[in-house]
Formats: sequence, structure tokens, C-alpha cells
Amino acid sequence: MNVFSYLDAHEEQHRKELEELLGIPSISALSEHRADVRRAAQWLRDYLERIGFASAEVLPTQGNPVVWAEWTGRPGAPTALIYGHYDVQPVDPLELWTSPPFAPAVRNGRLYARGAADDKGQVMAQLQALAALLAAEGSLPVNVKVLLEGEEEIGSPSLEPFIREHPRRVEADLIVISDTSMVDHGVPTICCGLRGIVDMEVHVRTAATDLHSGLYGGAAPNAIHVLAQLLAGARQGQGRILVPGFYDGVRPLTDEERAQIAAVPFDEAAFKARLGVEALVGEPEYTPLERMTVRPTLEVNGIWGGFQGEGPKTVIPNEAHAKITCRLVPDQEPEAVAQAVVHYFQTNCPPGASVRVDVGHCARPWRADPGSREVRAAVRALQESFGREVALARMGGSIPVIEAFDRLLGVPCVLMGFAPPDSNAHAPDESIPLETLRLARRALCRFWHELAAAG
Amino acid sequence: MNVFSYLDAHEEQHRKELEELLGIPSISALSEHRADVRRAAQWLRDYLERIGFASAEVLPTQGNPVVWAEWTGRPGAPTALIYGHYDVQPVDPLELWTSPPFAPAVRNGRLYARGAADDKGQVMAQLQALAALLAAEGSLPVNVKVLLEGEEEIGSPSLEPFIREHPRRVEADLIVISDTSMVDHGVPTICCGLRGIVDMEVHVRTAATDLHSGLYGGAAPNAIHVLAQLLAGARQGQGRILVPGFYDGVRPLTDEERAQIAAVPFDEAAFKARLGVEALVGEPEYTPLERMTVRPTLEVNGIWGGFQGEGPKTVIPNEAHAKITCRLVPDQEPEAVAQAVVHYFQTNCPPGASVRVDVGHCARPWRADPGSREVRAAVRALQESFGREVALARMGGSIPVIEAFDRLLGVPCVLMGFAPPDSNAHAPDESIPLETLRLARRALCRFWHELAAAG
Repeated sequence: MNVFSYLDAHEEQHRKELEELLGIPSISALSEHRADVRRAAQWLRDYLERIGFASAEVLPTQGNPVVWAEWTGRPGAPTALIYGHYDVQPVDPLELWTSPPFAPAVRNGRLYARGAADDKGQVMAQLQALAALLAAEGSLPVNVKVLLEGEEEIGSPSLEPFIREHPRRVEADLIVISDTSMVDHGVPTICCGLRGIVDMEVHVRTAATDLHSGLYGGAAPNAIHVLAQLLAGARQGQGRILVPGFYDGVRPLTDEERAQIAAVPFDEAAFKARLGVEALVGEPEYTPLERMTVRPTLEVNGIWGGFQGEGPKTVIPNEAHAKITCRLVPDQEPEAVAQAVVHYFQTNCPPGASVRVDVGHCARPWRADPGSREVRAAVRALQESFGREVALARMGGSIPVIEAFDRLLGVPCVLMGFAPPDSNAHAPDESIPLETLRLARRALCRFWHELAAAG
Repeated sequence: MNVFSYLDAHEEQHRKELEELLGIPSISALSEHRADVRRAAQWLRDYLERIGFASAEVLPTQGNPVVWAEWTGRPGAPTALIYGHYDVQPVDPLELWTSPPFAPAVRNGRLYARGAADDKGQVMAQLQALAALLAAEGSLPVNVKVLLEGEEEIGSPSLEPFIREHPRRVEADLIVISDTSMVDHGVPTICCGLRGIVDMEVHVRTAATDLHSGLYGGAAPNAIHVLAQLLAGARQGQGRILVPGFYDGVRPLTDEERAQIAAVPFDEAAFKARLGVEALVGEPEYTPLERMTVRPTLEVNGIWGGFQGEGPKTVIPNEAHAKITCRLVPDQEPEAVAQAVVHYFQTNCPPGASVRVDVGHCARPWRADPGSREVRAAVRALQESFGREVALARMGGSIPVIEAFDRLLGVPCVLMGFAPPDSNAHAPDESIPLETLRLARRALCRFWHELAAAG
């Protein structure tokens, strides 16, 4: 049987397999979901074994386990390492989901669930392409290793130690990842650059306890005001970051880079309509796409302090907290940016208050060579399956492990991403079109053949 | 039996009675405590009946019920209306309480519980003084009505309608209230002024959903940044309020008023040490006591938005919220101040975001005549019982109903307050010294005699 006929015949089965995985709430950020994270890993190991990876294992790390497998039936052919992640983001605000995040539902040809796009849907497209090749052709065109981690959404703290401890298991000629987005509906996309990241928590403290706003208001410091002023001072209006030293090391864009970005399809009116905003913000001297892909950012991801319940409570809060992430571009160093932010908060904290900044995970920005043999094989496969010109795009997100692969293994990374621009990854009502998953499976089968032919 | 001997003999009983009332979590701001609020009202009605107020009733209002009672055994003598409240503030952050807020505990001579100072402790001192007089002397020196409400901590929305609907029940020659603080340890204090209040909630909205900070960061508006900038812009550093029109109507302080405030004992170093802050904030041209009593304020009482759970979550939040209260001084009008704040937020909201401000309860500021016959009777009673010079102080808190009594009944209000300066009202570990309650009961018994004698 031809592999594409096989895919056509198993479309419903492939959807059901994905729905099964999506039903496991493997949220890595919340410790109460630890058992679910392990259950997802076990599910994937069993799946890999079932489709023909007899070697599939769940391997322990310092944190959540890694699912590992290899197929080595092509001696002499190149070996590819497929990387993906089976953990997902938290789901709150839960009340904004149309259907429960871990009860996959199909509406208007889209599959809705946390992880549908980021990254379980894309991981399963990868594994189902392998399953189809093994079932229809009895073998794979190249050797393949699979490495699926459970900590991507919390910064992959255990993956680099894992890579260092298991050099043989990760040895490969290239790395293939599907965990990125398409630049527009139906436009097959290869990601050629990612931003780095550094995440931080800011804690402001004033008095020993909350204070009565009537008795002390006017003279007692208010932790929320201090935090609001520090946050407001860190970013000009909604644009340029004002933290001294923040832009140190940012490599200026070349005319060629700006031209490449300008070539990516982008309809600002449609974009604003999709987001539901009346205006975009940011540095006026850069286009919106540049701001979202090749310019660094500082975003507050969460804030809390004082009374948040029903009704009024007349306190002067003595604590206020914020979560912040910065996205970084070549050649910013995460540690240096973190230090600049910490220094900003500490030196600008007013009398009567103290501030502590905890620095979390870090990842460097990454760039790929869009002219490599591997990327060209991916371009041909995607173009043929989707019937559209392939976009080679730098993206705004961060996949911390890619920079680690780049640094530790020194082999090319091919990032074929299938999340649609309206996937709502990290937000309520995350989804992916079933048609995109179908075309992705076909493109991935083609890719392995193109890669073998190019070998 | 002499009334003071009676009080001495019943000290433990009086503490136990108060502990019983403090054990009822009558939090008016949280709807899940509605039944507890009613239970507290019923408890007080039963108590009043037991001590000799045969007329005690729980009367319905649009909201939480009013406890009402009267003793009319002195035809021709003046009639006083004792006002107090049996509802309490919420208790979070719960983890900062040394002992559970509704399990009263005595440590170092202080009684710890939510409501110990504000206002159950003071209400019970009032009722126990009446109980002692009735038991020891068989009658009260004047006629007394009691009116205890259950919505003071949420702005007394039902009390003014109640007063209008029951003119006979509230008819009196003076109003007596114990719901204020002492200016220093052991210093008996009569409050001669209170600030008004207006409370608001600010809601900022940007995109239709939370957005991925990697994919959209740099161009998508962030609701938390918008809110932080609006809040930071509303208040200069931590001092002067920058909302246009905010100070309209503020009556300048006279030299005499400033001198009265300067005469109130205030040790700034001890005050800062008690609050646990290294510096006070506020308008430099006013003393700390002036800022806390006769100057208006704008305080953020709570803030929330985006992800507040464990670990990182890389979202650009599309909503952010804050609770704000302003304290007002003569002759600010709450409606005008609210309008100025609403106008500030709306006109300063940047493109890409929208803001809504909900205005909650309002109360006008209030001033008393420190030379009235009733206040002088209170001064004599307090001075005799506490053995210390009485402070006649303007205070920073708000008791919305006082302005309503003043406006609707037009009779003098005497505010004898017994909450110590370190009572932690509205905060964790609220408490009151048992010795203060003991002296308060004695002073109140004396007050009724002084008042009758002055009549």
C-alpha cells in the first residue's frame, strides 16, 4: 500500500490517537499534575513501541522523564533526531474555554484542546508519519531517533543534563522539530530563527502587614503603587524598553534581513481583527512583524497583590508581585539581560519599600541557515504537500532546547511548524485544523524521502 | 452592688461573651458568609434581650439585617442611640495569622481575632457597660437605643434606607459610637473628624484572549502594562495625587487645625518601627499625621491579572484589574472625586486598550464640634477611667453612616474609640488589649452618668 493511501485510510484513527493523548492534563508548571505528566510519557512510549520502535523507553531525568526511541534499520543512511514535548501550558482562565481543555472537541474542522497545537498535535503528526511509513513501506528512508521531553513549558531545565549524560542516544546528523507556527493560514513554514527568553518574578514588600487604608493612607507606602511605578518605568508607553543596558548586544538588522521579514505575508488589519485589538503597540521604527520576531521584549505575564476577592477591602497592601518574561534576539546574553532588569528594579525601588527579583529559566536566541541541504529537503516536501510557496521565517517564540542542541550537538535543526496563526497556544480555546494535521503527516512522509534522496 | 464592682466581678464572663461573638465569621464582603452574618445578628439580639432590652429585634433591610433595641425607662431624660457594626473584614492573607481569625486567642494580655477591635470588641464593651448598669443599678441613667448593622465593611448601603424607613426607631438626642482608634497606647481618644471614602474597581481590557508572549510580544498590547501605567500616572511617586480635579474642594487647613494635629502625640520613629517600614511616604508639605487624617488619598487596595500560579506562563494578559479607594476630606464631594478618577482613566487609556471604572460606595467626610456638651461629658468619663488626658483627634478612617446620621438626624455624634494604634484592624492578627476593654466598659458606665448629670 502507498503511504499516502495508508494515511487517507487511517485519518480517523490518527485523530482518535491524538485525542487520547490530549485527554491527559500533562501541565508541567503545576506540581499537582506530576502524575499526569508521567502518564503522558508512558502513553507515548507505548505508542512508539506499537508503531515499530521496539527500543522505546521512558527515561528518568532530574525532573520529568524523557521518552526516547530509535529505529536504526538503514545503516549508512543519515540519522535524524526528532524532538518534541508532551507537556502543556496551564489552562486558566478556565472559564474562557468553550469546551473543557482536556476533553478534545471538534468544531468547524478544528480540534480544540490544550496541546492541540503546542505541541502534542505536532508531535503526533511526526509519529503518525513514521507509523505510516513503517506500516505501508515496512521501513523508514533514514534512521530516526525520537526524544520527547516533559519540561518544555517550564524552560527544559533537565534536558541539557540529559543530553550531556546520554551522548549516544542523542547522536544524530540533524534535528527535526515541529513545535512552531505557520506564518499564515495554509502557508507551510520553516522557522529559521527563534528568540531567547529569560523569566523573572518581582516581589515588592513594604510594611510588616497589610494596613488599614483609612488609618494609614497618605503616609504608609503601598506595595502595589511601588510595583506599578517600577513596571511603568521599565517600558516607555507600550513601546521601547527603558531598563538601562537592556538593548546591549542587540545586533542591528541588515537590509537583507528586513527585506526577508517584509516578504512574509502580513495583513495588519486582519491581524488586529484576529487578536481583537484596535491598535498594535511597540517600537514605531520597526514593523509589527519585526517587533514580534527580531526585536527583544519585556512583558508582564501576571500580577497580583492585596485584596482580589468580591467587594471592597480597604487595605494598603504590603506585598505585590509580578511575573515577567523578556524575549531576546541575537546577540543578547540572557544572564546580562536578567542582571540589567534586576539592577533596574533594585536601583529604582523607592524608600519605604524593598524589591526582590528571582531569575528563572534562560535560553539564548537561535538562527538557522536557510540554505542548508536539510532545510531545502523540507522546503520541497512542504511545497509539494501544501501546494503553496514555503515561508522561511524568523519567529518570536523561544524553544530553549534548540539553542542547547545547536551548542551541544552542532548539527543542523529543521523546524517545520504546523500551528496555525490563530492556534491560541498558551491561551483558552487552543486548536489546530484537522486539515493542517493531515497535510503535515503527508509532508513529513515526503520529507524523510527527500532527505534520503538528498543524502 | 456598685457598677464598677460588678464589672470587676464579671471580667472573665465579659471576655467569654465577646469570644463567642468573635467566633462567628460574619464577613459582609463575601456572599458565602451570608448565613454567618445573620447568625451574628441573632446572637446580638439574644444578648440584648438577656441583659434587659426586652424590645430587641433583628430587622430586615435590603441587605444584611439590623439589630435594634431600646430601653426607655427614663421619661424626660435624653435618649442616646448607640451605633455599631457586627460585620467584619475578610481575613486573607490567612497564612499570616498567628492563630485562626475566628478562633479567639489571648496572648500577652491581648485578645486576637478578626473583629476584636473593629468593631465587635467595641460593640460588646458598649453593651456590657449597659448590662452592668442594668444589673448593678437596675436602670440606665438615660434612655438608650441600640442600632447594630451588618454592612459597615461594605459601605453601609442599606443603613440610610433603614434610617429613612424607621424614623421613630432612630430618633435620639445624640449618637454614641465606638468604632474608632486611640491615638496612642493608653491615650483615651474622642474622634472629632473622619475622612470620606469612594471605592472603585478598574478593569483594563486589550485583546480578545490572552496571547502567547513569544508569538505576539512586541506588538500586542498588554493589559497589565496599561494598568500599571495608569496607576503610576495617578500618583506622583508615592505622594501627591495627579488625577486632574482630585483636590477640587479641599478646604485649606487653618493654623489652628494644624496646631491641634501637632498636639497629638506622634513618635515617627516608633510609628515606622511598628509598621515595619523604613520610610513614610506622601506629600512632603504636610506632616505624617496630617497626611493620614486631613489630607485626601488614593490607594490601590488590590491588583490582579494574567497568570498568578506556580512557575512561568508566557502570556500577554488581555485583562487586568485593580481595586481603588480614595479617602476624602472637607469639602470634597465623593461623586465629583469619583468622576475625576473615572475621567482620568478613560482619557489616559492608550490605543489598543479599553478601561472601565465601576464606582462603588461613597461617603462624605465628617467633622464634630469638640466643645459640645456631649463631647465634654465623654472627655470627663474617659479621663477619669483611663487616668490620662483625652485626645480630641481628627482621624483618617471613614464611617459612612456618621455622615448620614449627621445629615438625616442632625444630632451630635460622640465617637469614643478604643482600638489601639496597633490593632491591625483590616489586617492579619487583629487584636485589642483586654485592659483597654476593661477601662472602656468603666468609662462608658461613667459616660452615661456624666451625660445624665449634664442633661
